[in-house]
Amino acid sequence: MFLHTLRESPSDAEIASHRLMIRAGMIRKVAAGIYNLLPLGNRVIQKVEGIVRDEMNRAGAQEVVMPFVLPAELWKESGRWDIYGKELLRVKDRHGRDFCLGPTHEEVITDMVRKEIRSYRELPVNLYQIQTKFRDEIRPRFGLMRAREFMMKDAYSFHATDESAEREYRNMFDTYTRIFQRCGLNFVAVEAETGQIGGFFSHEFMVLADTGEDGIASCNLCSYAANVERAQTRAPEVTARGKGISGKKIEQVSTPGLKSVEDVSVFLKVEPSRLIKTLIYQTEKGIFPVLVSGDCEINESKLKRVLSCETAALADEVTVKKATGADVGFAGPVGLNIPIFADYGVRDIEDGVAGANKPDAHIINVNPERDFAATYADLRVVKEKDQCPRCPGTFIIKRGIEVGHIFKLGTKYSESMGAVFLDEKGVEKPAIMGCYGIGIGRTAAAAIEQNHDENGIIWPPPLSPFDCHIVPVNVNDMETRNAADGLYALLTEKGYEVLLDDRDERAGIKFKDADLIGIPVRITVSSKTLKEGCVEIKERKKEGARLVKIEDAAQDVGRLVGG
Amino acid sequence: MFLHTLRESPSDAEIASHRLMIRAGMIRKVAAGIYNLLPLGNRVIQKVEGIVRDEMNRAGAQEVVMPFVLPAELWKESGRWDIYGKELLRVKDRHGRDFCLGPTHEEVITDMVRKEIRSYRELPVNLYQIQTKFRDEIRPRFGLMRAREFMMKDAYSFHATDESAEREYRNMFDTYTRIFQRCGLNFVAVEAETGQIGGFFSHEFMVLADTGEDGIASCNLCSYAANVERAQTRAPEVTARGKGISGKKIEQVSTPGLKSVEDVSVFLKVEPSRLIKTLIYQTEKGIFPVLVSGDCEINESKLKRVLSCETAALADEVTVKKATGADVGFAGPVGLNIPIFADYGVRDIEDGVAGANKPDAHIINVNPERDFAATYADLRVVKEKDQCPRCPGTFIIKRGIEVGHIFKLGTKYSESMGAVFLDEKGVEKPAIMGCYGIGIGRTAAAAIEQNHDENGIIWPPPLSPFDCHIVPVNVNDMETRNAADGLYALLTEKGYEVLLDDRDERAGIKFKDADLIGIPVRITVSSKTLKEGCVEIKERKKEGARLVKIEDAAQDVGRLVGG
Repeated sequence: MFLHTLRESPSDAEIASHRLMIRAGMIRKVAAGIYNLLPLGNRVIQKVEGIVRDEMNRAGAQEVVMPFVLPAELWKESGRWDIYGKELLRVKDRHGRDFCLGPTHEEVITDMVRKEIRSYRELPVNLYQIQTKFRDEIRPRFGLMRAREFMMKDAYSFHATDESAEREYRNMFDTYTRIFQRCGLNFVAVEAETGQIGGFFSHEFMVLADTGEDGIASCNLCSYAANVERAQTRAPEVTARGKGISGKKIEQVSTPGLKSVEDVSVFLKVEPSRLIKTLIYQTEKGIFPVLVSGDCEINESKLKRVLSCETAALADEVTVKKATGADVGFAGPVGLNIPIFADYGVRDIEDGVAGANKPDAHIINVNPERDFAATYADLRVVKEKDQCPRCPGTFIIKRGIEVGHIFKLGTKYSESMGAVFLDEKGVEKPAIMGCYGIGIGRTAAAAIEQNHDENGIIWPPPLSPFDCHIVPVNVNDMETRNAADGLYALLTEKGYEVLLDDRDERAGIKFKDADLIGIPVRITVSSKTLKEGCVEIKERKKEGARLVKIEDAAQDVGRLVGG
Repeated sequence: MFLHTLRESPSDAEIASHRLMIRAGMIRKVAAGIYNLLPLGNRVIQKVEGIVRDEMNRAGAQEVVMPFVLPAELWKESGRWDIYGKELLRVKDRHGRDFCLGPTHEEVITDMVRKEIRSYRELPVNLYQIQTKFRDEIRPRFGLMRAREFMMKDAYSFHATDESAEREYRNMFDTYTRIFQRCGLNFVAVEAETGQIGGFFSHEFMVLADTGEDGIASCNLCSYAANVERAQTRAPEVTARGKGISGKKIEQVSTPGLKSVEDVSVFLKVEPSRLIKTLIYQTEKGIFPVLVSGDCEINESKLKRVLSCETAALADEVTVKKATGADVGFAGPVGLNIPIFADYGVRDIEDGVAGANKPDAHIINVNPERDFAATYADLRVVKEKDQCPRCPGTFIIKRGIEVGHIFKLGTKYSESMGAVFLDEKGVEKPAIMGCYGIGIGRTAAAAIEQNHDENGIIWPPPLSPFDCHIVPVNVNDMETRNAADGLYALLTEKGYEVLLDDRDERAGIKFKDADLIGIPVRITVSSKTLKEGCVEIKERKKEGARLVKIEDAAQDVGRLVGG
């Protein structure tokens, strides 16, 4: 076996999966974001691919292979040649013709299908490939998690009707659920964007792991789950608190140079949730003050939807000063005579603190319902304990790694590229498309993020490069050697994939490597236990080992890895 | 099934496999030499890949995946960055760093192995991948046969000793033999170059087909076979004929403007085999006249070996005139006082014709052994009936398509890139390498070149996209439809891959498509035969069909496709 483990982690590996894949001899860097898959790594990738292929075929999708080097013409037709950034690596061939390295294949598949399909009778169709992609990331990192060259399963479906597209969307949702279940991963499907007409037509599949880049808000009662960047929350019940029941009057206080929530909160001894953060947004429709409580962040996607704006960005200092009369950090809602938008959470603040719209000053005892007018809406990035939009539950925030994404594309590409069909009445219509991606290498890396300890990887059995790892303690002892070889032959014959560590190394080194590589079951063969006719079986995920009669070992392995 | 056959051949398809792959809906062109594999084509490619992977694993090779986008540094280390032509497509990433699209992976694998291997104990190792490659061919053509982006299995082995490298070479020879046998192809392994020390360390695996680009000389008695470009021939027995037994004297004849063999042969009414073609070669060791009979061509590889020269090219007109006193076309061996080299076939010419070394003149009645001195050697491109170098047999010339190549590389890359190991005595040595390639798409295309007729493809069963093709004559007849669906379910359950043509089309169109696609067994279901409880079974490779009881159909399919 071409397998060389490393004691030391590479200096550029910031996360566990990257470190462990390198140390376990699964991958090696060739250039930034470009890796060799060594035999051990390739075995894992093939496990993921096998499950994905199997379930996609079962779902009725058909496998194709599109090229990696793509002609510019197709990208010009869709308009993406000009708008796609530098992630699209552009190449000229020997004749000076423009090509790019495929980061995604909507253009190619749309071209493929428009040339073949004539009638609604030939629809629907779902075509997928498992193929290398390239995105020239400005800062590739985290090993296979964010590589430049990476393996992806991408599927594209074409439909005559919305109902058909939505049926396939649900089919793919179920298929993805089966895929990640079969991979043995703990995951959630989160809503990624709300459709206009009530349905949800984009879901991300997230493997849960503390090191995940994405936050996931999931309800503690119902099945609602969404990326925190996109999760909605319900309008809280309005209490009397924001109406000024304490009777305290607004009062200006001096806060010289104190601009941040933290500074003001400490100085005035008020918890951040009682600060009314006022941000001035510049949009194509003008300037808007937007309020959120000091312990929350504004979600700009929500803001744009509420304002019905295409763009919404923080205004520059000059604009802020002109609009509020004060520098950034001292804006507040009281006395402003432009329409104010505020997050639901602000309405309920009692005797709060806001900027005074004067230099180096805040006002205290602000009560929103008494002291200013605002339009209230869901404008914040949700956080732990915020309320579920669907039920009386509240959010639990977890971290996750996006491994899959399903999306109803609509007619964006079929319209721009003319992928049309004749419907039952002979009317020409653009096909309705869906697209469905899974990061193959990323799924393997996410499995490690979710399943490891300080000693190494703990593979979910379906993704493990081998089912079983046999460690003969001393290969120079003939009895040990023969028993280990015998077990290897027996297990292999029974259809298990077995790694036999026949190196002439100390047992301690072999055990350390076994823990690092993380195969679910380790069988230790030593002359000591052989005297009693036994071998030692240890599960990677558990402490301690058991002695098992050598003739029962195969059955035991089967029980543990589900063979 | 996303499968659309075409009546018309594409205008740019010159060979049968290209035409038929397009017409059968297997591939579609995206750009010159760049193709989509549609579902039917992908199924065939996966069949080839499956056989290759299975046999490579069985042979003890380990699968890896190397990148497609390769850093220039590695190619500069081996020296190939500068000497590789425009087939190497060079790319700059967003940071301006140089990369290329991998046409082959010696550099990457050598880099991979040098970083892992320390000791002879870790050798030998054979690593392979099945992966996309790119060669920016100036004139891509013939569909998958000579594409720019193509799928290849490439393997590289590393060894501590020559014996080990040669053992693996034989292992790969046997593995390739098994692979192409399992593909159901008629092929020969031909010697591609002779090793210095008696062994043969490069073989090409050629699928025999009349349309093949390569000529293959194979002996009618022994197992010798070689590319005609490289095949050797034995020195014929010397007869008295070249000694001038006819007694005729040399005589000059006027041949104004007649420079070509054909012109002279027609004008003088002498068959081309009696013309002594005299070519002046320029080498780094000076000028050499080289003779070959008019019906043969000079093999420059052989010439260089005989002259021990690095370069040998036809001299320019000025040089020829200076050396011979005449223009190109009128050179001859008689009277030249520079060392002459001649092919064995020349020695035996009786009363031949040669250039007179004077403008517009030839001489006749030339007898080599009598009229000039020359060094005789095997210098020609062999042709039908030339003599085998190994036995008394003679050559049969066939056409073939190169689908595999095995090669003992030696230390070219391990020396230039420092892939060294410590031997048993602790001495540092460069690893000895072998490399072994198979063109995956080309194998599929070659299978079609070898197995087709005017109606379409005739798949060898192991490469067929499906085992069996069910054609219900009339899908609107419920009985027919039910019987076809029942057979489909039964055969699928038994593990056969079945294509059911459930289109509402005329039977004639379906039969034409079935012939075009070329699945080995077609089952026709019609109400007519169902009355007798029968379906019609037709083998694609045979004329005529048989009626088979519907309950025996599955067994019959099994017998025909070897299930």
